[in-house]
Amino acid sequence: MEVAKNIDILVLVLRLLATSLLVLTACLVALDSETKIVFDVIVKKATFRDLNILFVLVWIDSAAAAYNVLQVLRCCVFSGPKVDKNLAWLCYLLDQAVAYIVFATSSAALQGSLFAVTGNSHFQWMKLCNIFTRFCFQIGGALICGFVACLVLLAISSVSAYTLFRLY
Amino acid sequence: MEVAKNIDILVLVLRLLATSLLVLTACLVALDSETKIVFDVIVKKATFRDLNILFVLVWIDSAAAAYNVLQVLRCCVFSGPKVDKNLAWLCYLLDQAVAYIVFATSSAALQGSLFAVTGNSHFQWMKLCNIFTRFCFQIGGALICGFVACLVLLAISSVSAYTLFRLY
Repeated sequence: MEVAKNIDILVLVLRLLATSLLVLTACLVALDSETKIVFDVIVKKATFRDLNILFVLVWIDSAAAAYNVLQVLRCCVFSGPKVDKNLAWLCYLLDQAVAYIVFATSSAALQGSLFAVTGNSHFQWMKLCNIFTRFCFQIGGALICGFVACLVLLAISSVSAYTLFRLY
Repeated sequence: MEVAKNIDILVLVLRLLATSLLVLTACLVALDSETKIVFDVIVKKATFRDLNILFVLVWIDSAAAAYNVLQVLRCCVFSGPKVDKNLAWLCYLLDQAVAYIVFATSSAALQGSLFAVTGNSHFQWMKLCNIFTRFCFQIGGALICGFVACLVLLAISSVSAYTLFRLY
C-alpha cells in the first residue's frame, strides 16, 4: 500500500519532468530561425520547416507531452488503491509506444542534422552549419534536451512495466 | 513451473527469430553495391560505406545478433527452475538497451535513406535513387527487415520485463 503510493508519486514527478522537457524541445526547434545574406545579394532563411524530420519531431514531441499531461490528469482523478489489470495493460502499451516513437524520431532528427553539419562528399551534399551557425547550435541543444526526455520516458515505461507485471 | 517452461521456450524462439532477421538485415545492407556509368565517362559506385549510418547499422545489427546468440547459449546451459533476481535484472536492462539502440539506429538509417530518395531542395541536396535504383530497393528491403527485427526485440524485452517484475 505504502509502496504503491510512493510509486504513484514517482510516476507523477517523472511525467511532469518528461512533459516539460518535451515542450522545451518542441519550442526550441519550432522557434529557431536564422536569416543570412549570402554574397551580399541573396537572402537565405533557415527554419525547422526546411528539414522535414524537424517538423515531425515538433509534432511527435508535442503529442507525447499532451499524452503525459492526460496521464497526469488520470492519475489525479482515478487514484485508488485498487489497480485495474486492463488499465495497467493499456498504460504499459501506450507508455512503451510513446517511449519508442519519441526515441526513434529523436535519432532520425539527429541523423538529419548530422548531414547538415558534415555534408556528404560522396553525394555532393553541401554543409550548412558553417552558414547558419546559431541555428545549428539551437537545434543541437534541442536534440540533447530531447534525448534527456527519452531517458525519462524510458524510466516511466519501466515503472509501468513494474506496475503491470507485479500483478502476476 | 509449467508457465516458466513455456516462457523459456517462447523467449528461445523469439531470440532465434531476432538473430536471423538481424543477420539478414546486416547482410542485405553490407552486400549491396551498384556501379553505374554516368555521361558515358564517369564510373560511379554506390556501397553502404557512402552513407555512414548504414555502416553503423551493419555493426549495431551484428552486435545485437551476437548478443542474442549469447543469450540463447545461456538459456540452454543455465536453464533451471530457480530464477536469480540479479540475473533477471541484468537480462532486463540489456534487452531493453538492445531494443532501443537497434530501433534508434534503424530509424536514423531510414531518415538517411529518405534523403537519398527525396533529396532536399532547400539545401540543394541531390536525389540519388533515380541513378542507383536497384541499390535503393535492396536497402529498402533491408530496412523493412530491420524494423520487423525491432518488433521481435520489443517482444523479447516485454517478456523479460514480465520475468523480472513477477518476482516482486
